[in-house]
Amino acid sequence: MCGFMGTVVALAGGVGAAKLLRGLVRVISPKNLFIIGNVGDDIELYGLHISPDLDIIMYTLADIVDETKGWGIASDTFNCLEMLGRLGFEKWFQLGDKDLATHIIRTKMLKEGMTLSQATAKLCKMLGVEANLLPMSDNPVRTKIRSGNMLLDFQEYFVKRKTMDTVTDVIFEGAEKAKPAPGVIEAIEEAERIIICPSNPLLSISPILAVSAIRKALENSNAPIVGVSPIVGGKALKGPADRVMASMGFEPSAYGVAKFYGKLLKHFVIDEIDKEQKTLIEGLGIKVTVTNTVMKNIEDSIRLAKVLMGIAKANK
Amino acid sequence: MCGFMGTVVALAGGVGAAKLLRGLVRVISPKNLFIIGNVGDDIELYGLHISPDLDIIMYTLADIVDETKGWGIASDTFNCLEMLGRLGFEKWFQLGDKDLATHIIRTKMLKEGMTLSQATAKLCKMLGVEANLLPMSDNPVRTKIRSGNMLLDFQEYFVKRKTMDTVTDVIFEGAEKAKPAPGVIEAIEEAERIIICPSNPLLSISPILAVSAIRKALENSNAPIVGVSPIVGGKALKGPADRVMASMGFEPSAYGVAKFYGKLLKHFVIDEIDKEQKTLIEGLGIKVTVTNTVMKNIEDSIRLAKVLMGIAKANK
Repeated sequence: MCGFMGTVVALAGGVGAAKLLRGLVRVISPKNLFIIGNVGDDIELYGLHISPDLDIIMYTLADIVDETKGWGIASDTFNCLEMLGRLGFEKWFQLGDKDLATHIIRTKMLKEGMTLSQATAKLCKMLGVEANLLPMSDNPVRTKIRSGNMLLDFQEYFVKRKTMDTVTDVIFEGAEKAKPAPGVIEAIEEAERIIICPSNPLLSISPILAVSAIRKALENSNAPIVGVSPIVGGKALKGPADRVMASMGFEPSAYGVAKFYGKLLKHFVIDEIDKEQKTLIEGLGIKVTVTNTVMKNIEDSIRLAKVLMGIAKANK
Repeated sequence: MCGFMGTVVALAGGVGAAKLLRGLVRVISPKNLFIIGNVGDDIELYGLHISPDLDIIMYTLADIVDETKGWGIASDTFNCLEMLGRLGFEKWFQLGDKDLATHIIRTKMLKEGMTLSQATAKLCKMLGVEANLLPMSDNPVRTKIRSGNMLLDFQEYFVKRKTMDTVTDVIFEGAEKAKPAPGVIEAIEEAERIIICPSNPLLSISPILAVSAIRKALENSNAPIVGVSPIVGGKALKGPADRVMASMGFEPSAYGVAKFYGKLLKHFVIDEIDKEQKTLIEGLGIKVTVTNTVMKNIEDSIRLAKVLMGIAKANK
């Protein structure tokens, strides 16, 4: 623990965010961490409510994640999925047997009238996750991907079609009407530090910012907002962030990400390999810390979390 | 095929019935077979609708049943159940991962507004089951077991408490109001032969007979009703039928079963080992065929099915 006693808010997508967060919960008290998770990727499949980003974070913090893939549960099997295929259903969404238990229980809780945040809190408790994982909203927000004339559901683009389509627009269906989930605004208002995790800016962080009350609270916050670049050496460490940025007219670089977040960002952490972009980013009025941002193991995660927590509040 | 061209109705519980039925579909055209399945054992678990008896029959006729257990799907794993346990849920109901696919899809179909018979028909089609599997009713009928002061749900008695309680009464909740599922009465009216499978008379066949329109249609039927004793040598081949009969005041024997069905039965097939009960049963006005009724393999099932189909219609 770094001795930091205030609360921290983290805006989070999936794998990249989870890697940072598992370091963070070892650096600050997990109870002081409020993770605002993207639910734009949520999907209903086979009648089950699946929240891929929340689950990746939950499994990672519960230390049961499949380390190799970065998502799903370690040593899982896929026998239910195989049978679903035999029953004539599409099986492109990789649903592990253990993983299914989460979706079954979440669906049951939602059906019984619980909100997504209540269900998430309960699942976290059952798995021993002490950090506060808050879905950005309890209302449905669904990320849609436009590629030319096609409008794809997020998981259709991401999993089924393996991100092969050129993204020409991203739409957050329902975002206008969506209210922040209980606790989200309070967490932002009370936070002493706000982190934008190294997630896809356009596909994972944007849905959160598309909930206008969240964006407003972030803009009004007194806490320094510190981002970590998900683009290292012009490439996304995982996923299509670099390609999506390029096709959406943003430079696929740490600088491009900083420019995308713009005035929201007070401080940006970029990789050693991108150190030459420091001056360029500082020109945007954003302070920059250069360090090793690639998290290959838990030690890397802890080290990066310490760097983030070490960035002085004075930086605001 | 035995050349029999009419339709056959079979009243069926779980494992014992399924063993006979898989012989029957090899002796007559599966399309001419109408199975009326018990749904008194149905249970909602983890928000999923489970129909154990229908599934046993469906899996057996699809040739994917776990032959050793007589229920569930062959080579299944139990990883989802293990995870459900980790999430704090009871895991006494043995839900295999492949098996779960059925329950997930059934639940999805019911949620979308399909009836249980429509969902069952669709599942059967997906699994290539050609016989007509009809739930006795689309309305909920729930078998409850009274044991002294305790009132147990059927699966609680059967699986969770491993039939350890002495059954003092059996209640079919909802049976009074339940209507036969579409096709059930028509099937009985048009049947040229009606079979009561070797299932538990009090726990598996009684719920079907508790739907009054079904009992009435059977009583009015012109087809000979032929039963097969589930009690061989005073013992149930599987399950607690012998103990339940005794505790409910019926003699746990082929004769006791015949007496229980009474005038509904026109003909009863009993095992060689029980041949001495022939005269006693005939004394009830029921014709008797003595043969080997124990089905250890598919050949036994076919042989018994042939005996049943060979019983002349004149027997009526």
